[in-house]
Amino acid sequence: MSTLTRVQLAYARIRAVDRPEIWIDLRNRPEVEAEARAIDARLAAGTHLPLAGRLLAVKGNIDVHGLPTTAGCPAYAYHPETDAPAVARLRAAGAIVLGTTNLDQFATGLVGTRSPHGAVRNAHDPTRISGGSSSGSAVAVALGIVDLALGTDTAGSGRVPAAFNGIVGLKPTRGLVPTTGVVPACASLDCVTVFARTLPEAEQALAHMAAPPDRALPPLPQRTPGPWRIAVPERAQLGELDEGWAEAYERAVTQMAAAGAEIRTLDLTPFTEAAAMLYQGAFVAERYTAVGSFIDKAIADGVTSLDPTVVDIITRARDIPAHRLFADQDRLAALATHARTELADADALLLPTTPGHPTLAEVAADPLGANARLGRFTNSTNLFDLAAVAAPAGEVNGLPFGVMLIGPAFTDDRLATITRLLQPETRLAVVGAHLSDQPLNPQLRSLGARLDRTTTTAPVYRLHALDTTPPKPGLVHVGEGGAAIETEIWQLPPEGLGRLLTALPRPMTLGTVELADGTRAPGFLCEPTAVTDTPDITEYGGWRGYLAR
Amino acid sequence: MSTLTRVQLAYARIRAVDRPEIWIDLRNRPEVEAEARAIDARLAAGTHLPLAGRLLAVKGNIDVHGLPTTAGCPAYAYHPETDAPAVARLRAAGAIVLGTTNLDQFATGLVGTRSPHGAVRNAHDPTRISGGSSSGSAVAVALGIVDLALGTDTAGSGRVPAAFNGIVGLKPTRGLVPTTGVVPACASLDCVTVFARTLPEAEQALAHMAAPPDRALPPLPQRTPGPWRIAVPERAQLGELDEGWAEAYERAVTQMAAAGAEIRTLDLTPFTEAAAMLYQGAFVAERYTAVGSFIDKAIADGVTSLDPTVVDIITRARDIPAHRLFADQDRLAALATHARTELADADALLLPTTPGHPTLAEVAADPLGANARLGRFTNSTNLFDLAAVAAPAGEVNGLPFGVMLIGPAFTDDRLATITRLLQPETRLAVVGAHLSDQPLNPQLRSLGARLDRTTTTAPVYRLHALDTTPPKPGLVHVGEGGAAIETEIWQLPPEGLGRLLTALPRPMTLGTVELADGTRAPGFLCEPTAVTDTPDITEYGGWRGYLAR
Repeated sequence: MSTLTRVQLAYARIRAVDRPEIWIDLRNRPEVEAEARAIDARLAAGTHLPLAGRLLAVKGNIDVHGLPTTAGCPAYAYHPETDAPAVARLRAAGAIVLGTTNLDQFATGLVGTRSPHGAVRNAHDPTRISGGSSSGSAVAVALGIVDLALGTDTAGSGRVPAAFNGIVGLKPTRGLVPTTGVVPACASLDCVTVFARTLPEAEQALAHMAAPPDRALPPLPQRTPGPWRIAVPERAQLGELDEGWAEAYERAVTQMAAAGAEIRTLDLTPFTEAAAMLYQGAFVAERYTAVGSFIDKAIADGVTSLDPTVVDIITRARDIPAHRLFADQDRLAALATHARTELADADALLLPTTPGHPTLAEVAADPLGANARLGRFTNSTNLFDLAAVAAPAGEVNGLPFGVMLIGPAFTDDRLATITRLLQPETRLAVVGAHLSDQPLNPQLRSLGARLDRTTTTAPVYRLHALDTTPPKPGLVHVGEGGAAIETEIWQLPPEGLGRLLTALPRPMTLGTVELADGTRAPGFLCEPTAVTDTPDITEYGGWRGYLAR
Repeated sequence: MSTLTRVQLAYARIRAVDRPEIWIDLRNRPEVEAEARAIDARLAAGTHLPLAGRLLAVKGNIDVHGLPTTAGCPAYAYHPETDAPAVARLRAAGAIVLGTTNLDQFATGLVGTRSPHGAVRNAHDPTRISGGSSSGSAVAVALGIVDLALGTDTAGSGRVPAAFNGIVGLKPTRGLVPTTGVVPACASLDCVTVFARTLPEAEQALAHMAAPPDRALPPLPQRTPGPWRIAVPERAQLGELDEGWAEAYERAVTQMAAAGAEIRTLDLTPFTEAAAMLYQGAFVAERYTAVGSFIDKAIADGVTSLDPTVVDIITRARDIPAHRLFADQDRLAALATHARTELADADALLLPTTPGHPTLAEVAADPLGANARLGRFTNSTNLFDLAAVAAPAGEVNGLPFGVMLIGPAFTDDRLATITRLLQPETRLAVVGAHLSDQPLNPQLRSLGARLDRTTTTAPVYRLHALDTTPPKPGLVHVGEGGAAIETEIWQLPPEGLGRLLTALPRPMTLGTVELADGTRAPGFLCEPTAVTDTPDITEYGGWRGYLAR
């Protein structure tokens, strides 16, 4: 599909989803189409554009040449002469920017509601918050409007909205992606982040943006040999979680252990104490350093597009004395030492991304309290100079549940590898030529499958001998009048299951098979016309029984 | 499945495959079963054993406590007091050693035929060589007897047999896995390697074995931002390849480019020149340092289990003068500088693992010539202190074809990430509720799918309106009397396709759909009984046509 067609479908989708609050400035369509045609022409001429056709949304505090940078405050707007390096690098690889997205004004908030452009509604439940401050970027990805979106993360703005919208958010080590061309929130802590629906897409985009940072490089992060070591806090240290969230988190922990990780307990105290310091202590004064004088003047000028909550937070920071900052820096250094000790020899800290997911109404009722609670697990990451990956980990009550993996600076790649442990192996029910002693079994093994156990289907199937080479049976669900058929359950990675399907010859199919224990597993079935006029061999109890007849 | 059952199935499989030459010492079964019971008991008691139930084969030049270490020469046997660290670390995580495997004697060879225990036959074609020197280990993995196997790699012994048997071989950066407890080949170059059928399994095992090396750590490998950069030589520099291999290699290059990598040309000369020096120059003298005096004495004692080719290579090395070694070291340093320049700013060098795959008869006819040819691409890797991953990349004439990714020291993780680009995206034919404007489409998008194009099936299908929630159509292959049905082709990672299948409700299935252009793609079908007594809606030309009726 051409880049032009992709752009046209994206504009159609923007209309269809009817979420105008996602965007601050959506680019003029003919201009984007012209850019898409140019990309298609360069592709046709043989230019290598690895991100050609990938549609990109950019958080409104990051410079995009041709659009104003507003940070969610129209009065703050300036017109950048160039793209921020993060944007320029993705565009150079062929990505197409559709526009700039809504955010908590001046990236001050984790809610996605603090904007004169309106509260961004959650992609899955419009009565709930999108999370922020990278609200529009996350929802644009989650709704499938764009493939990639840029956010920023100081307190958790690149992770909280990933969790609430069921997508992946990479918060790279500070300095890996330049913050040039980004309106500062806390300049010493800010990171550019990337959202995508899958981890490989986010990793690919990050590879395009990440450069050696302008700071002394630490030694290669080393580890002692052994399994991936995942640190988790005691349940009590997680504090109050939304209903069902403790169980969802526990499932993620169990899944990592089942995938081979070693789970160890750590003391979360330094992390949550530092988290509280980000807004309650002196560090918030850096936000005044960034935009305080603009806000003071805007108030004096009667500018109306200021968000009252954001203004309140930043103007109150004006009077924080410098001696408190020195004291807080000392306190933070002690907490960081404690945190490093707790993380020593762990590859990652696994946490729920947030303690819960409020509704828009709940945030409106308590703007500061609801926001403070959301940052409990994310706020300390940049203060401690750590890297993080936010990833989906199932659902609670039909809404996305997300977890974070947090690790030492420059272990970004390793964190992504460990995140893959959250993708559990799948089962496959085998009744014929793929059974452990049958001719096609080597194919299963080469896809990474391991035999789990031998059982039977629920007694609701008939088995037919199909006219195929090599000979195979066809399993048919009939309900009444069916029998239990001998079945092997194999375990394999989802990727192996996908590759099995791409190599499946007609008339074989893969569907859902009901097993003797009442559970269901993906398994071999066949097309309808394959079983007309073929012998019913159910009486043999299975394929091996039939072969031995 | 219990560890005990896995062990029992493995012994059954060893009998079934009838490849006695794989093993030097297969462990006594009751002893292994007792160890398996102990693992199961520890699991039951709550001990975390991430590799519990994983079966392991160990190349016969690596120490396994309880078995003799022979390096393929029974007269050389000694009885180690402890496991080599590589073995001990896997065992500590629950892996069960089944035995020690056959090899080219003293790890001197890439063929797998130089052993008094017999030539190891290829897993896929017993008339061809297994490759070596880690011959038995690779074939034990490829035949599904064990999950993991350890090899060693000096000239390519951990990669050549991976390529010939269609499995993954990780050749870590020198020093990452200790070579303590390994019979040296060239002690300054040797690496312990791991084989598995899939990359994640090999990576997991490596994480258990890899420790900070006992040498100065280089700075963090850095790269300028941009796509993965893959260096490839001009076709002529690859030299003579087996029939079909140039095309298979070109497909791998094209696939990496399609997955977003940037392909750049490099001069392979320093790599192939250094490769030739490994056996033709003075470096081979290090093999005499390792086992020369043993061989001299064994010859004098009339020992009969020496391999004549290996003896010839090692004893000829006795008389290489030290001044030639100094000269070769100077020459190698110059070649290494040239190689580094060629690799500058490339993330990896992509090469066929070998130039071809000889038969057992061809190697018997020209033992030295055939072996020398095999090392053309692998021999220089350890001389240049590089890391490598060998991975399957399709088939040629029904036999595995393998490629290598070679990169700077300590980029082992990055090389594995880049290797994943060899797994192409798959297509999915969608005809119903997953179409781009239909209710289940968000599920596809969340799995990383992107719309490729709209087309129709071949005119051999009927479409039924099924009785499901939400309403879905059932596509049925009928051949004669069928029609072309509107179809969208989506692209997604194999993992996404696997996850789609695990969430598929009855009576939907996934099988192979014939398309208008004569190609086939995985796509939605349904179970046989779902289409009896449901309305035939073929006349509407597709699901959207029916909905709009």
